[in-house]
Amino acid sequence: MALGKDYANQQCSMARALEVVGERWTLLVVRDAFYGVRRYNDFLVHLGIPRAVLATRLQTLTEAGVLEKRRYQESPPREEYVLTDSGKALWPVLGTLGMWGREHLPGTLPMRVFVHADCGTELGAYGTCPACSVPVPPEDVEMRPGDGLDRDTDNPVSRALLAPRRLLMPLEADRV
Amino acid sequence: MALGKDYANQQCSMARALEVVGERWTLLVVRDAFYGVRRYNDFLVHLGIPRAVLATRLQTLTEAGVLEKRRYQESPPREEYVLTDSGKALWPVLGTLGMWGREHLPGTLPMRVFVHADCGTELGAYGTCPACSVPVPPEDVEMRPGDGLDRDTDNPVSRALLAPRRLLMPLEADRV
Repeated sequence: MALGKDYANQQCSMARALEVVGERWTLLVVRDAFYGVRRYNDFLVHLGIPRAVLATRLQTLTEAGVLEKRRYQESPPREEYVLTDSGKALWPVLGTLGMWGREHLPGTLPMRVFVHADCGTELGAYGTCPACSVPVPPEDVEMRPGDGLDRDTDNPVSRALLAPRRLLMPLEADRV
Repeated sequence: MALGKDYANQQCSMARALEVVGERWTLLVVRDAFYGVRRYNDFLVHLGIPRAVLATRLQTLTEAGVLEKRRYQESPPREEYVLTDSGKALWPVLGTLGMWGREHLPGTLPMRVFVHADCGTELGAYGTCPACSVPVPPEDVEMRPGDGLDRDTDNPVSRALLAPRRLLMPLEADRV
């Protein structure tokens, strides 16, 4: 059913936010960007979504200033998508969603565990470190595999994301 | 474009959460439930969405245990939709989304301000009270009209939501 992209008569800041990130798959694209995915083909492989959907989502997120397009190769020209500061500010939205899913949907095992890189403590509610009592920006978060993670995967992006890694560290760093 | 309702191969808790609340309009239905909307016709009037979409969203949310259907009238039989504890636990998701919209989307004026009912202080990040340094559950939140709220409305639900009110207090309480 076509509902259009905007929420007519819904000017509240939640509705405005949902106009940008509320379409199907959009928040999973953003999640992957936090995991270090930057390139079209890597998003495609990891998310397994139709090309046209991915292209539209990347364009919407770029126009909304959540992602920034950066040229990383001149010939042939290739671009990657990197989270802007506005995009990084979506971390708490993903965090609260994931926390809700884990606590309130039966049978959900943590696929990934997020810890404060400085001290190794698992982040608490809203991404604060219970040991240091500080809010931890995504740059200082280490992502580790959790009990629910499928380690038997042929998918090269999923394989790269099996090892502990910092959020936002580009996936390509592992491939050099 | 039909993408199906589930995210195949995406078992992470964020993806699972998005299977429940990630469809268009769903989080706005949940938002309205926090505002005290419980009845089908009130959701319809306030959201202005097609009947079939609203009916499907209410059914999905009920099946997922976010809303609970309660009979409030026997003849003719009428039911209302009330947030469960699992549904109330979505408050931080809405809060972080609204905060992001307000801070990162240009031209967004706060339509509603959320304060700690006990002390009148506006809630800070993640719904904590900066004055009392406690997380404030939605039951203890007072919602007040903000600068962006359109006060000139014919819509009876929007009119009822113009006055300051506690979250979760049923809209019907104003009509008795």
